[in-house]
Amino acid sequence: MVVFSYENISNKVAYLGPEKTFTQSAAKKLFPFNELVALQPIRKVVLAVEEDSAKYGVVPLENFYNGEVRETLDSLIDMKYTKIIKETSLSIVHCLGALRGHGTIEQILSKDQALEQCSRYICNYFPNAQTISLNSTAQAAEEIYIKKLKNAAVIANKSALEKYGLDLIEEDICPNNKTRFVIIGKSRNSPSGNDKTLLVIHPIIKDKPGVLEKCLGVFSKREINLEYIQSRPDGKDGYYFYVEIDGHEEDEKVKDSIFELKTFLDPEFNYENTLKILGSYENTYWKKN
Amino acid sequence: MVVFSYENISNKVAYLGPEKTFTQSAAKKLFPFNELVALQPIRKVVLAVEEDSAKYGVVPLENFYNGEVRETLDSLIDMKYTKIIKETSLSIVHCLGALRGHGTIEQILSKDQALEQCSRYICNYFPNAQTISLNSTAQAAEEIYIKKLKNAAVIANKSALEKYGLDLIEEDICPNNKTRFVIIGKSRNSPSGNDKTLLVIHPIIKDKPGVLEKCLGVFSKREINLEYIQSRPDGKDGYYFYVEIDGHEEDEKVKDSIFELKTFLDPEFNYENTLKILGSYENTYWKKN
Repeated sequence: MVVFSYENISNKVAYLGPEKTFTQSAAKKLFPFNELVALQPIRKVVLAVEEDSAKYGVVPLENFYNGEVRETLDSLIDMKYTKIIKETSLSIVHCLGALRGHGTIEQILSKDQALEQCSRYICNYFPNAQTISLNSTAQAAEEIYIKKLKNAAVIANKSALEKYGLDLIEEDICPNNKTRFVIIGKSRNSPSGNDKTLLVIHPIIKDKPGVLEKCLGVFSKREINLEYIQSRPDGKDGYYFYVEIDGHEEDEKVKDSIFELKTFLDPEFNYENTLKILGSYENTYWKKN
Repeated sequence: MVVFSYENISNKVAYLGPEKTFTQSAAKKLFPFNELVALQPIRKVVLAVEEDSAKYGVVPLENFYNGEVRETLDSLIDMKYTKIIKETSLSIVHCLGALRGHGTIEQILSKDQALEQCSRYICNYFPNAQTISLNSTAQAAEEIYIKKLKNAAVIANKSALEKYGLDLIEEDICPNNKTRFVIIGKSRNSPSGNDKTLLVIHPIIKDKPGVLEKCLGVFSKREINLEYIQSRPDGKDGYYFYVEIDGHEEDEKVKDSIFELKTFLDPEFNYENTLKILGSYENTYWKKN
């Protein structure tokens, strides 16, 4: 991972807490010289940047097994100035650990998302164990250590097991697991020549296949590749589409396609946010590494 | 919600536990006369149906705020016989509660997903409160009651607050919140004339915009409406697309479009699961009610 340095490295960086989690690891690697502040929930991190109490924020955007993080997307939609300025990814190596000389594993403690990610392993090897979710993977390790739970195992990263003197039963129980994190901020990147742009489209038009086909057509006729697409209900009989395309919002063909799309979605330009750019940032090919 | 009755109502129904959660409420309403079994994680519920230790299963598929439940989708992809046979939805009415005569709220306890769903409310009204996630919303209410936490509030349903004698501070703090649940089983529905079909497409072809446009074209030229679309990385440089279309897999035009799509994706029929049907079930218009 590349260290991210800006002119003013003394500024605070907010990240999704608690401490000792994968988001903290990502924040530490990206901002080794900054003061880091753990906030919960995600919206607080985004608001901290929007309201200038932090210069940057680090939040998860997508995990292979849990999917997109809607709280991040929803919070960004509500902001005026805060956008995604960089993506990065972290391999998530979950380990199973327990007290030395543990008995039969009857309970598996971890954080909700980690239990979900490892459900295949749990069902294969501990089909009768009860799963219990706690506030963080680190807290689950602490719980076993403090309460001396002999019939429990924890899913956490290796350093959490080491911290509480737990034995490693198995490493990397959820292979190929990655989380894509994004750095959010108010600064804007210039095109690097290898960028992506995340858009959210909220059509007034209700004919969904038509809108989607039009979107895809607008991009494909300019040979703009799609990295990601997602539809979701807006709770009011309409839809949001999230579309991540190749290219920077300042690239001519991206500009053209966005203009064409906006004109199609709202010909009189009567509505706000029928199309919103959530950020342009360098493509790290996070899924391929 | 319509009670779901099959010939053999004495059979077990597995649902995503623990007890006293919204999934249990959904399972109880759908199967009031069956023996219900709480299992965790989701994969265990799906396996219970696949391996005949339960006749039906009830699992969440999508929430307005948290998004799709990938564990449900992933588990269904791995099964041979178990498919979605019905969808239903439940309004999720989250309430904030605390001990009578509580002090300043410094902590808010709940389950992870509920904290995410209510993050806008938390940031607006309790910007300085720490959020703590527990195994279930019911357990969070119990924690406050047992430990007499005077400076904590809980997000849970009303009945959990009542059970532990907690005061209701505010009702429905996350408006329009709904979860779509699905019933899974091995039986097959006949077309009702108003159905949907959930497909997962795993193209060998890597040119994504092309594949997506082709999919949309195949459906739209037959005037088949799309209810839902989603792309996700498969962890191996490829993609899955989830597509929910209007119509039953036995409907002629759905059959035709699936055949056309299969032929396009894999002309020699060399691969398994380039296109898999996860179920056909009646459309309840869950987003609109």
